Amino acid sequence: MAEQPAVQINNISETDIEDAIADVARRCSNAGRWGAGDVLGTLNHLDESKRVEGARLVRRGRSFSLAQLFDAEGPQRGWRKRVNPVHTMLSSGLDAEFGPAEFPHGFAGADDVVFMPLQCSTQWDGLGHIFDHGRAYNDRPASQVVTSGGDRVTGIETVRDLIAGRGVLLDVGRALGEDGELPDGFAITTEHLRLTAASQGLSSRVGTGDLVLVRTGQLARARRDGWGEYAGGAAPGLSFSTADWLHSSEIAGIATDTWGFEVRPNEFPGSFQPLHQVAIPHIGLFIGEMWDLDALAADCAEDGVYEFWLTAAPLPVTGAVGSPVNPIAVK
Amino acid sequence: MAEQPAVQINNISETDIEDAIADVARRCSNAGRWGAGDVLGTLNHLDESKRVEGARLVRRGRSFSLAQLFDAEGPQRGWRKRVNPVHTMLSSGLDAEFGPAEFPHGFAGADDVVFMPLQCSTQWDGLGHIFDHGRAYNDRPASQVVTSGGDRVTGIETVRDLIAGRGVLLDVGRALGEDGELPDGFAITTEHLRLTAASQGLSSRVGTGDLVLVRTGQLARARRDGWGEYAGGAAPGLSFSTADWLHSSEIAGIATDTWGFEVRPNEFPGSFQPLHQVAIPHIGLFIGEMWDLDALAADCAEDGVYEFWLTAAPLPVTGAVGSPVNPIAVK
Amino acid sequence: MAEQPAVQINNISETDIEDAIADVARRCSNAGRWGAGDVLGTLNHLDESKRVEGARLVRRGRSFSLAQLFDAEGPQRGWRKRVNPVHTMLSSGLDAEFGPAEFPHGFAGADDVVFMPLQCSTQWDGLGHIFDHGRAYNDRPASQVVTSGGDRVTGIETVRDLIAGRGVLLDVGRALGEDGELPDGFAITTEHLRLTAASQGLSSRVGTGDLVLVRTGQLARARRDGWGEYAGGAAPGLSFSTADWLHSSEIAGIATDTWGFEVRPNEFPGSFQPLHQVAIPHIGLFIGEMWDLDALAADCAEDGVYEFWLTAAPLPVTGAVGSPVNPIAVK
Amino acid sequence: MAEQPAVQINNISETDIEDAIADVARRCSNAGRWGAGDVLGTLNHLDESKRVEGARLVRRGRSFSLAQLFDAEGPQRGWRKRVNPVHTMLSSGLDAEFGPAEFPHGFAGADDVVFMPLQCSTQWDGLGHIFDHGRAYNDRPASQVVTSGGDRVTGIETVRDLIAGRGVLLDVGRALGEDGELPDGFAITTEHLRLTAASQGLSSRVGTGDLVLVRTGQLARARRDGWGEYAGGAAPGLSFSTADWLHSSEIAGIATDTWGFEVRPNEFPGSFQPLHQVAIPHIGLFIGEMWDLDALAADCAEDGVYEFWLTAAPLPVTGAVGSPVNPIAVK
Repeated sequence: MAEQPAVQINNISETDIEDAIADVARRCSNAGRWGAGDVLGTLNHLDESKRVEGARLVRRGRSFSLAQLFDAEGPQRGWRKRVNPVHTMLSSGLDAEFGPAEFPHGFAGADDVVFMPLQCSTQWDGLGHIFDHGRAYNDRPASQVVTSGGDRVTGIETVRDLIAGRGVLLDVGRALGEDGELPDGFAITTEHLRLTAASQGLSSRVGTGDLVLVRTGQLARARRDGWGEYAGGAAPGLSFSTADWLHSSEIAGIATDTWGFEVRPNEFPGSFQPLHQVAIPHIGLFIGEMWDLDALAADCAEDGVYEFWLTAAPLPVTGAVGSPVNPIAVK
Repeated sequence: MAEQPAVQINNISETDIEDAIADVARRCSNAGRWGAGDVLGTLNHLDESKRVEGARLVRRGRSFSLAQLFDAEGPQRGWRKRVNPVHTMLSSGLDAEFGPAEFPHGFAGADDVVFMPLQCSTQWDGLGHIFDHGRAYNDRPASQVVTSGGDRVTGIETVRDLIAGRGVLLDVGRALGEDGELPDGFAITTEHLRLTAASQGLSSRVGTGDLVLVRTGQLARARRDGWGEYAGGAAPGLSFSTADWLHSSEIAGIATDTWGFEVRPNEFPGSFQPLHQVAIPHIGLFIGEMWDLDALAADCAEDGVYEFWLTAAPLPVTGAVGSPVNPIAVK
Repeated sequence: MAEQPAVQINNISETDIEDAIADVARRCSNAGRWGAGDVLGTLNHLDESKRVEGARLVRRGRSFSLAQLFDAEGPQRGWRKRVNPVHTMLSSGLDAEFGPAEFPHGFAGADDVVFMPLQCSTQWDGLGHIFDHGRAYNDRPASQVVTSGGDRVTGIETVRDLIAGRGVLLDVGRALGEDGELPDGFAITTEHLRLTAASQGLSSRVGTGDLVLVRTGQLARARRDGWGEYAGGAAPGLSFSTADWLHSSEIAGIATDTWGFEVRPNEFPGSFQPLHQVAIPHIGLFIGEMWDLDALAADCAEDGVYEFWLTAAPLPVTGAVGSPVNPIAVK
Repeated sequence: MAEQPAVQINNISETDIEDAIADVARRCSNAGRWGAGDVLGTLNHLDESKRVEGARLVRRGRSFSLAQLFDAEGPQRGWRKRVNPVHTMLSSGLDAEFGPAEFPHGFAGADDVVFMPLQCSTQWDGLGHIFDHGRAYNDRPASQVVTSGGDRVTGIETVRDLIAGRGVLLDVGRALGEDGELPDGFAITTEHLRLTAASQGLSSRVGTGDLVLVRTGQLARARRDGWGEYAGGAAPGLSFSTADWLHSSEIAGIATDTWGFEVRPNEFPGSFQPLHQVAIPHIGLFIGEMWDLDALAADCAEDGVYEFWLTAAPLPVTGAVGSPVNPIAVK
């Protein structure tokens, strides 16, 4: 197994961290690549031919939801006002059966509302979600992208029709972990991804325009042991050192079964989500978090096929910097 | 063109209306058809072979979002507390660029929350959304299905992985309307649907397990003229007389570009959504409302192909009786 | 110090508990006392003369807010969807200073929204908050009082103009506790209340129409040690045995500095808030929870005056079964 | 009756408007008056002796709520995401009576939540609510006062214990209007206020530290005729020319029965709330809007006494730039 890059980057100063991030950001930047007005980022890699290729992967017609429940008993603990969704009824079956009639001829209905942070459960990060030194994707000043009124440039609604294509599962938990799970703090390197793909076989090749799902197994652990610090605590996840691969592979998007995509604690001491700082504002990469990959992974392990047709359509809340999503994989 | 059933059912009493609904409900009931424990209703018709068939319809790889925006300027007017979505930022690009630093090494993020009725924009009605005389789908007492805690039996999360298959557009607005639009109050009968399918050609056949989209053109009108009374006012929509076809056709789901699916004002004088009262609790039919079918319809008109792969995955808010959705059609 | 009633009621069955509650409820019931249509409960005790008496207690003009902050970092832990308030900005000073101008001549504004459970912080319980065997205050069927549409009979708005009168602080924490704090699980009996009043002197007499504030000191402890299980965990509070006094004293309302008013764990093994079950639906008593009595208590200890003018006006959210409140005491 | 200043200021340019506002702002500024750290603004005028004076006005003990209902059927129309409050139940009396038992021994409860803009109904504007050319009260940069996290300096919680004192009603509607109502667009000048006070008699004198309530009668009209454009449309209200009096009178706060305090349309053509632009960031004045003064006004007309004890305690939502409030007047 490859060495942990954490070993290499342990004793550096805040300035060193900023330099390290800036170096990688420079190498990986897609700013200007698709024009000054671009709002799609890596979804530019996902073209129509890729969708035709993806749809051909439907062989048995079995579909999988990759969403966690949006539930009051979810993992959120109120950090930065991120609470779990609060779902309440405007009317219920009890009103229909025992309450005063509100409609004629025996008609009655139940309605409901929800209050939720858009990052509370299974989600896409939009391109306006993360900034580097006040700059957003495509070298835009953050203040000209996301105001209190929302993301006026790269709001999630701008990509509402695009995220359907070939999906590939890299089940690193199963390939390299114990009982299908990587330990918290495990930094997944490019080499780990390569080894996983190799162990899974030909259907796992990753190329331009693919939507890559990386399973760490942490969600399975949380499901068994309780949420604990799933939301923001220690977790397996991608190493900062994968930034170059995230860029050069030309994938359209990537998602994990963890809260924060990257390994936590982050590899630079005292840092916070440095890979996000490169991936979103510089690569323009669509990152999914808190996806539930377990049922799909079990099926892939059984039939040995790790590619599938994936539709992960964000809810087009105007100006949102992220979006709840119920991704559907079909094999 | 077939006669308007509205003509036939104009002068009847409340009791007559109840009897008429009860008659149709009896004829169309799927209660018990898939077992006493069934929670899927007409999604039982959508099996894996149907998904294989649907995926084969992806030829060009062009994708269409069929969602309206979830927007503060949406059509809702507060009826029964249905407001438009309120999306607010927990932090913005202005904070990132000009506010106090909250994270190290130049990292900053924008987060957001939303408050919304689950029926505020493009949506699926769940099986717990409508009751007939206090009974829910599969002849369950409404009170044992939907309490203040939500839908404990048929919550939308129970179908979160299923709604992907063959979609068919019946563009009644284009086939029978003027400039692509049916007038408000136009009741679409089974005969209208048949005529539309016939005019569209072979790709429009509808059968077991299909997801049918009925375009009236009302949304195009609202887009041009302003929302007005789009939310609950007069609208074209399905005639009560289509109930038998909705049942016998064995479709898996059906959606329109209108607020309320059925024609409004409803055909029985003084009635309220009688077709819902049959379709949801008796047929167990999944009904979509406020879908945006215009871009897809324009494409279908151009290439003459009215069938496609459709993924319309509800957001799995636990216990929800409906769900916002961003349906994705791919041709 | 009086014995703990907990000692006496330790080994009883569920039926015994129901009997015990029913016995006390019968003795203390105010059902019918103010007519079949009454919605005011013990606020009937607070008449205009009481307000004149209360206002005369203003001697120095010093005012105290008895509200905790309504804050994202509050004590709530999500139990039964009770989250802390989520306050977000619709626009901010950053938009005003650095964002696009939205108004002419240099005008700019900041607006905000809040989502909160009405019981999330300092609050009044309304009369529709608690039921006994499906019955609400004044022997009404619960279902005819509070539907999904809210409390149609005793909604908090019905008392929006009434809660201003003579307040009395009983600082049991200071009188009987250690360093001003009672330990968690301490059941305050009528005798404890009597001893406290006696130790405080003449200004502490309690009579018809008074608003009584009972300080346990638990909030001071939480402020020092962190919230921990303040919301629903162990706490000092009123003994079930005080029910008779709550009734016979003819007080208009009572509030504590704890989450749940009553001692917790509750005195009957396996029970849940039995004193509420008597006090709200039977006595019709207005109960305040999570009040911050510390600054007022320090002042009372200093000047020896434990009575004051108290205004505790609930926010008239139509149909609410409780209400956030910022009570103001003036001495 | 005094002339309408609107006449004088009709044909001026945007620059002229800015100059006019700047002139008045300079004359009326309280910046620095109470120190660089001040967060109380005109509440500095309301001292303890004023509270003693106010309490002495309680003679009969009759109390009045000056709050409108916080209601889904309120006046808001969604302008800048200001919706009416949405109040929903987490559990209801129907659950208690007919739903599954969730607690032992016959205990059941109803809980509720609310989502609301803090300016949706009866409210105080906080000092962070309005900015002038990016400056907040006490000449602070707006960005250093109100970020997406809320008002970090003058959040409404900073004044949570202060707003209790002598209230005075100036019923301009009754004094100068027809049937107690001023027409929409009527600009109330200082002279109108003086005439009203004179007609009401000695109890209406206004001085340092008073809380002044100005009744226009518009709410009575809205109550009779429907909300119409109450929220933001034409309305009677204070003339821009009252700014000097608002400053020199040294009142602690002022409130009206209208949406926007100032006359609307605003007197400068094309302007937006210019009096706010002076009153809040420069005078540091606490402004109340959408108060319900009708019952109090009727009582004052009857007994001829226009002064009273007023408690108007804002809900201390941390960092809020405004607050819902249920003001209580006692005579």
